[in-house]
Amino acid sequence: MIVTALTGMFDLQQPVVLAPMGGVAGGSLAAAVSNAGGLGLVGGGYGDPEWLRTELSHVCAQTRRPWGAGLITWAIRPDVLALILEYRPHAVMLSFGDPQPHVAAIKAAGAKLICQVQDIDAARRARDAGADLIVAQGTEAGGHGAARATLPLVPAIVDAVAPLPVLAAGGIADGRGLAAALMLGAHGAVIGTRFYAATESLANAQAKACLVAADGAQTARTRVFDIVRGYDWPAPYTGRALNNAFTARWDGHEAALQAALAAEQPRYRRATEDGDYDTAVVWAGEAVDLIDDVDTAAAIVARLGGDAAHCLRAGSACLR
Amino acid sequence: MIVTALTGMFDLQQPVVLAPMGGVAGGSLAAAVSNAGGLGLVGGGYGDPEWLRTELSHVCAQTRRPWGAGLITWAIRPDVLALILEYRPHAVMLSFGDPQPHVAAIKAAGAKLICQVQDIDAARRARDAGADLIVAQGTEAGGHGAARATLPLVPAIVDAVAPLPVLAAGGIADGRGLAAALMLGAHGAVIGTRFYAATESLANAQAKACLVAADGAQTARTRVFDIVRGYDWPAPYTGRALNNAFTARWDGHEAALQAALAAEQPRYRRATEDGDYDTAVVWAGEAVDLIDDVDTAAAIVARLGGDAAHCLRAGSACLR
Repeated sequence: MIVTALTGMFDLQQPVVLAPMGGVAGGSLAAAVSNAGGLGLVGGGYGDPEWLRTELSHVCAQTRRPWGAGLITWAIRPDVLALILEYRPHAVMLSFGDPQPHVAAIKAAGAKLICQVQDIDAARRARDAGADLIVAQGTEAGGHGAARATLPLVPAIVDAVAPLPVLAAGGIADGRGLAAALMLGAHGAVIGTRFYAATESLANAQAKACLVAADGAQTARTRVFDIVRGYDWPAPYTGRALNNAFTARWDGHEAALQAALAAEQPRYRRATEDGDYDTAVVWAGEAVDLIDDVDTAAAIVARLGGDAAHCLRAGSACLR
Repeated sequence: MIVTALTGMFDLQQPVVLAPMGGVAGGSLAAAVSNAGGLGLVGGGYGDPEWLRTELSHVCAQTRRPWGAGLITWAIRPDVLALILEYRPHAVMLSFGDPQPHVAAIKAAGAKLICQVQDIDAARRARDAGADLIVAQGTEAGGHGAARATLPLVPAIVDAVAPLPVLAAGGIADGRGLAAALMLGAHGAVIGTRFYAATESLANAQAKACLVAADGAQTARTRVFDIVRGYDWPAPYTGRALNNAFTARWDGHEAALQAALAAEQPRYRRATEDGDYDTAVVWAGEAVDLIDDVDTAAAIVARLGGDAAHCLRAGSACLR
């Protein structure tokens, strides 16, 4: 067991937070992470009410431990946030945009506010808005993010918002990365890609297999999947995904893709339905090198915590 | 004192290696790092024999501790390598290219071979060529490098070349980053930008002041400084530097810069001579956020080691 401000805040056994991957981190995965002693966050994504009702019912039914939900800040509709808060989450995580308009509702519902940021200025703004925890997300992360890398970004944000506790996100998939995050001054890690390949994740089995087979050199940040899906993501956010035939065709030709949407969107939708990952997206962080299997969330959390503890012990044994 | 395979190999007090920054890591800086218990590497860069004779004489005169030198592999001339080896370095670090043609000469001179790589395949090739130490360099690094980030790259390379010891480079400027590197399975850190702003570094005082004033969001990878200086760097290498008026003018317009060299090269040379860093390059890594002063190499090494030891102790104190 590793004790930090994060584990104290939510009575966790391990300083591990499930990244609220939209459509992938459903209620069963979030509950499994919480039951294993981490903090499971349901991935609310763009805020589909029907999906949220289903998955929030699952998480409430499957765990009595603290859990939460995450949303894409620029896409939040007040009624969707209200829907989530009806299920009494212990935490709400907001990423990609100004959290300020949503703070009062979240606090009034008794949930802790976790704000994920990608640079130092946004960290200061989140602190000023009333965040209880800041997540410093590096460019290594799978899915949406920005340009700064985790290793130098985390200590810079720790210094900028002290004494507010900070978590690290991006590039962490095993106990070594978790222990490194703690050395950087973080109180835990937000982990996505490793849990994408969990048994309980809602990702397609074929997408999980792609992720297990991939290495970190095969991921890149791109806008093409947002363009073809019709999402107008603001700068500076891009999504890190596995390179495939679709990125090879369209990366660097974003305007042409925009012009070809009438033909490309139905083709893309079909590929998604068919599990054709030469075309459809598999979001993945650079830490895919460290992911060699699909396993249960309980086993993943236990391994993260156990291996991190081993690293921490070995580190102090280097001191003379 | 922190004990690792690196400190054992060179009888160091701290697992800290001075990055051999070309033209910046001269003999006095390398000697100061070695005298402080780290491993100082003279930055041989493209291999100017006159500069090397001067700086190698300095390092030999100023320390009796182990020291070394680094070269840009694709630019090595055999006579320059032979010149360096005449000074009996304890280590030679090769970066950016195939080390294989130079291994025999380095080993015959009794020096350890340190190979810096930017991806897993190059790490395996360096191991097969006979490297004694592998440096896994992340994209956060100042100066030349590639695309993968340090935090996920280091453990992936540790796994790929085990049991060969690995060092981490890129994004490390304080004891937190050094301790994090050890958690990732590295045996120490190669540190550049922090020592660029050392008293003993050969960087211009104005360039050091720019670096102290900058933050990590102001750095980016670019090719424009290589183009204007007439260096034909092979893919995939780019240089991370502080953004300035020159990068604002030419980034994304590399072909136009190439076409304008007749006018731009003299202008650029003048700016370098005048210390005009609106035009001239200041190489800098993303960890510039963590650099707030110019200090002696001895103080920097002591702080790195002391703060890392503090982090390692605090990390093991989190265990229950």
